[in-house]
Amino acid sequence: MMVLRAVCLLSGGLDSSTCLAIARQQGYDCRCLSFNYGQRHRIELAAAARIAEHLGAVEHRTISFDLRAFGGSALTSEAAVPKDRSAEDMTAGIPVTYVPARNTIFLSFALAYAEVTRSEDIFIGVNAIDYSGYPDCRPEFIHAFESMANLATKAGLEGSSRFKIHSPLITMTKAEIIRKAVALGVDLKLTHSCYDPDAEGHPCERCDSCVLRRKGFAEAGIGDPLLA
Amino acid sequence: MMVLRAVCLLSGGLDSSTCLAIARQQGYDCRCLSFNYGQRHRIELAAAARIAEHLGAVEHRTISFDLRAFGGSALTSEAAVPKDRSAEDMTAGIPVTYVPARNTIFLSFALAYAEVTRSEDIFIGVNAIDYSGYPDCRPEFIHAFESMANLATKAGLEGSSRFKIHSPLITMTKAEIIRKAVALGVDLKLTHSCYDPDAEGHPCERCDSCVLRRKGFAEAGIGDPLLA
Repeated sequence: MMVLRAVCLLSGGLDSSTCLAIARQQGYDCRCLSFNYGQRHRIELAAAARIAEHLGAVEHRTISFDLRAFGGSALTSEAAVPKDRSAEDMTAGIPVTYVPARNTIFLSFALAYAEVTRSEDIFIGVNAIDYSGYPDCRPEFIHAFESMANLATKAGLEGSSRFKIHSPLITMTKAEIIRKAVALGVDLKLTHSCYDPDAEGHPCERCDSCVLRRKGFAEAGIGDPLLA
Repeated sequence: MMVLRAVCLLSGGLDSSTCLAIARQQGYDCRCLSFNYGQRHRIELAAAARIAEHLGAVEHRTISFDLRAFGGSALTSEAAVPKDRSAEDMTAGIPVTYVPARNTIFLSFALAYAEVTRSEDIFIGVNAIDYSGYPDCRPEFIHAFESMANLATKAGLEGSSRFKIHSPLITMTKAEIIRKAVALGVDLKLTHSCYDPDAEGHPCERCDSCVLRRKGFAEAGIGDPLLA
């Protein structure tokens, strides 16, 4: 039987955890990749490790580098994380939590990992519905990255692999993502979403990520086990 | 007067040093970016620092991450670096010194740095003539990356910037690059090319990079100051 191999980007949040569960359901052996990039909410890495184990990943690697060297984002500098914005506020523009070229960097490392492990498939939990308006969460970006990836690599050049970037959540609402996660048996208590947690890792319940999470659970009619 | 700002990838080798000199000649304020990625020849980073200063870069940043976590290349693992191959041998296939997705990763960080510093131009010294057959040195790859970059970023999305990836060496022979460097006053004694230097940093004179460098200097009719 042919082994299906995938690299799955995993932050430990709702979206990437659900994305991993979808890849597992589709029969992929999953190698998970997380990043310690100087984010203020690096506590999410502990959630990523829990989720990788919970969902039976073959391997979980964390790559470290420091995007604070560039700054330019509230997630990688001392700039304040916006609080108490409504989902509508979030659609007004790209917020200060945008990290320049973050998904490009993440997918580039995923591509390297995929090439080395002979994985043709890369899963990323981006979402262009209930999201913060980040440019690198849009389908156009994902398609452009996929085209580039197949020109960038030995595997692509030699035709031994055709890389595909899967973004199964891209047109789903947050409520749909939560329902999907529950249907697939993901223990959402293990996830972490907050951009600005306290020292013990408790969510602030006021940043964009917490607001979108709350809205999603409310719309799904499910209680958030993290707040129980 | 409008300030032209560029981010220049700089390894400290012949090609990236010449590329930086070209950007400087074109009037750009240059921010240089180097990578400590676990390469066995990380001594090149000292050359990069010397060259950045020599050519009047505004800033020089080095980002560290460890591609040895993935392996898959003679430059990031214990696999032997090939020696004594002719330039013709090198055209036979992609060698084991290929580092999966390296230029994709490098350009992704350059894109982040460019976005944060409001630089529209990124310079990379890739070359598709006297080179080792790496897929991520070809014009098709560079064009695809540029298209992707303009979809990936806030600056690209809002139309406030249009990123351009410059690869001024891409169709030049190594001899032409060396002549260009000399014409622009680059002190080539400051550069480092070897993949497998000894503990003091002396070039092995036998790896692909040394062979291409020697061939280039010979064809240019110039003595290599590094070997003088």
